Amino acid sequence: MDATSGLKQRCTEPSDYARVLAVMDDWWGGRPMSARLSHVFFSHFRPTSFVIETDDRLVGFLLGFLSQTRPDEAYIHFIGVDPEFRGVGLGRRLYELFFAAAAANGRDWVSSITAPCNQTSIDFHRRMGFLVDPGDGEVDGVPVRLDYAGAGGHRVVFHRRISPNAWPAAPDLCLARPASPAEAPPRGHGPVLVAELLAPAGAP
Amino acid sequence: MDATSGLKQRCTEPSDYARVLAVMDDWWGGRPMSARLSHVFFSHFRPTSFVIETDDRLVGFLLGFLSQTRPDEAYIHFIGVDPEFRGVGLGRRLYELFFAAAAANGRDWVSSITAPCNQTSIDFHRRMGFLVDPGDGEVDGVPVRLDYAGAGGHRVVFHRRISPNAWPAAPDLCLARPASPAEAPPRGHGPVLVAELLAPAGAP
Repeated sequence: MDATSGLKQRCTEPSDYARVLAVMDDWWGGRPMSARLSHVFFSHFRPTSFVIETDDRLVGFLLGFLSQTRPDEAYIHFIGVDPEFRGVGLGRRLYELFFAAAAANGRDWVSSITAPCNQTSIDFHRRMGFLVDPGDGEVDGVPVRLDYAGAGGHRVVFHRRISPNAWPAAPDLCLARPASPAEAPPRGHGPVLVAELLAPAGAP
Repeated sequence: MDATSGLKQRCTEPSDYARVLAVMDDWWGGRPMSARLSHVFFSHFRPTSFVIETDDRLVGFLLGFLSQTRPDEAYIHFIGVDPEFRGVGLGRRLYELFFAAAAANGRDWVSSITAPCNQTSIDFHRRMGFLVDPGDGEVDGVPVRLDYAGAGGHRVVFHRRISPNAWPAAPDLCLARPASPAEAPPRGHGPVLVAELLAPAGAP
């Protein structure tokens, strides 16, 4: 029996907001994160937002939505995994749930951002097949969009194709392909089946 | 020439985020509001988000989106008006722009929330035809949804019909009709024309 056996996954409910607020500062090592997360992500973006839980405890969540500015894109806004459940694939599972939901809603691309100092997040996105947007600046060798999250809030912007027919025609996306071919995303990767992903997380 | 002549209105651009951050703490009387506003509302919800500006100055903004949980609803997340431009109808104008955009996207209802201590906002929403959701609690005589924005974050929830055929069949909406008939919303009010509303704010 591995660490993920018995875990359940489902779309978020508004009542998950309080459960996430109760744990998130802890999960982020004591940083005051909870003030930055609005209830609207629990009230209005259910079809593309997910939680993973044990019988009595939340262990992971992802909040995302379908972009209303870019009709071919879906955006991952926030992801959190209980420190005791890291390293067992819950981040990947949540992202794959989101890719499936985005594809089921006709989206070709998924985007996300992170701070340039967050090497763990950058590595995770690269492993998940995301490319780094070349942006308009660089911080410690990482391409960023300058002041993306307000003055001084430089951000690494990621894009990942989730349908095979969108390459490279997505509007406004200036893709920086990785130098190493080993890091290139799988070109023929099609939408993941939602039904398959919504099977219990610990199922054989 | 009135205070609104020469004002222009348009949908938001991502670059408006920095402009709003630069003024919003001032507009809210020094309260640190800017940390609570994510860039995503400028990047991904352009069709239902608006700014009003002079030639060189932002004087109002509204950030809203189409609910992805409730396909018949659109939600107003944030509105701000420069204190020097209050009392001249910019709040009403921004709300009407949003109603028009929501209706053009097939939505029947608009919702919004506010803190129970914010009597100005409650009065404004009532004037705009919103009804107060009966909620599950009361603060100072105002019906609220308890803990809606986290523990102790009780909120007044407003709903307004923007299409005539949705009354009273919207799912999950428990409408509290006002005691005074004079406060009832206009029953036959249909969608506002976007083209009409996108004429210059000061046009005759």
